[in-house]
Amino acid sequence: MKAVVLASGGLDSTVAAALAKREGHELFFLTVQYGQRHEVEVERALAIGRALGVSDHRIVQVDLRSIGGSALTGDVPVPKGRSAADRAAAIPVTYVPARNSLFLSLAVGYAETIGARRVYIGANVVDYSGYPDCRPEFLRAFETTARLGTRAGVEGQGIEICAPLLHKSKAEIVRLGMAHQAPLHLTHSCYDPAPDGTACGRCDSCQIRLAGFEAAGFTDPITYAGREESV
Amino acid sequence: MKAVVLASGGLDSTVAAALAKREGHELFFLTVQYGQRHEVEVERALAIGRALGVSDHRIVQVDLRSIGGSALTGDVPVPKGRSAADRAAAIPVTYVPARNSLFLSLAVGYAETIGARRVYIGANVVDYSGYPDCRPEFLRAFETTARLGTRAGVEGQGIEICAPLLHKSKAEIVRLGMAHQAPLHLTHSCYDPAPDGTACGRCDSCQIRLAGFEAAGFTDPITYAGREESV
Repeated sequence: MKAVVLASGGLDSTVAAALAKREGHELFFLTVQYGQRHEVEVERALAIGRALGVSDHRIVQVDLRSIGGSALTGDVPVPKGRSAADRAAAIPVTYVPARNSLFLSLAVGYAETIGARRVYIGANVVDYSGYPDCRPEFLRAFETTARLGTRAGVEGQGIEICAPLLHKSKAEIVRLGMAHQAPLHLTHSCYDPAPDGTACGRCDSCQIRLAGFEAAGFTDPITYAGREESV
Repeated sequence: MKAVVLASGGLDSTVAAALAKREGHELFFLTVQYGQRHEVEVERALAIGRALGVSDHRIVQVDLRSIGGSALTGDVPVPKGRSAADRAAAIPVTYVPARNSLFLSLAVGYAETIGARRVYIGANVVDYSGYPDCRPEFLRAFETTARLGTRAGVEGQGIEICAPLLHKSKAEIVRLGMAHQAPLHLTHSCYDPAPDGTACGRCDSCQIRLAGFEAAGFTDPITYAGREESV
């Protein structure tokens, strides 16, 4: 059975892809290049797709800078060194307006074109830094919307939105990835990497990732700026 | 009050914009350039925005050709000379998978960025040629999804999706446009125009448009290939 995976090049989407593969799906990756600061994500996503043996990998360019509104599209600075309490306090500036709605729309469109019945997304409510479009009620509402708005939904049973990591902690996600040979060494999580792709180690995403590997009892295989624990 | 209008350059979105203006909104146009065959639409949308005095007009490029699946993105031929019964029989090849879901996601993201509380779309169920993503139940489901998935929805009352032409016939839309000085002479509806933008007069969209003007008792002000009734 074919499945579309929204592949960001990050840890969560890579583990979600490994789980989709384990369940016997033929993988079709979709990566959205949305004018993010960290274009290294796209290169990593392609490498991850090759490592997981995808049947096809589509890159869709959407210039979200033209509608603005997020630190991830270059409008405001990425916050550094925040505590977990700070991170939980509000929707962060790295929130990109309607990003998952856009990504899922593209994934559902692609799924419909190739006849896939499932879309995998690495969305997560535990360590999600307050993004409203990672919440389970959003994902269920989107699935309903997609059923009503697509040929697949009108003529058949619709397209299922699968978020297998929705309620997992980052430590559980790391353990799942290790258990299923997800290529975690190729993944990229940093919101503000160096030009060569090296992670900063201090933004919300790096802090959550590092804490997750530590809690899972594994060493993060990627390189961080100014640290010695790189591979 | 600010309103985002999804402006395609077509008849329906132009009349929807004229209605939004009549209701006292400050207009912000959003045009999605999605690799459609008829890029003339974007030029027309810009001219229509100027004619209606928009405060801003954003163009977002999304290359839907990379996910394929529609005559409007160049994958299959545009049908010509079909009867109304043929058009009503099935979802047409000009259906673009998940297009309105994508467009509305972008519009909601833009609305959130500028603090607009309404998004206008020219969607229509009467002459809509069988597109599932023009149905009222899809639009309501999308509004719910947007409320759950955005900062505006979590922190406030959300963003309303307004489709004032949803249940109007094409003749009623033409009459509304004429009554509210919508710049119909700048609009473009053809799915398969000549390189200079001249409408073919034979595709579904042209046929529906011509019949609408005729039923409304007005002459269509645009030029059609091989006809004498141009202005």
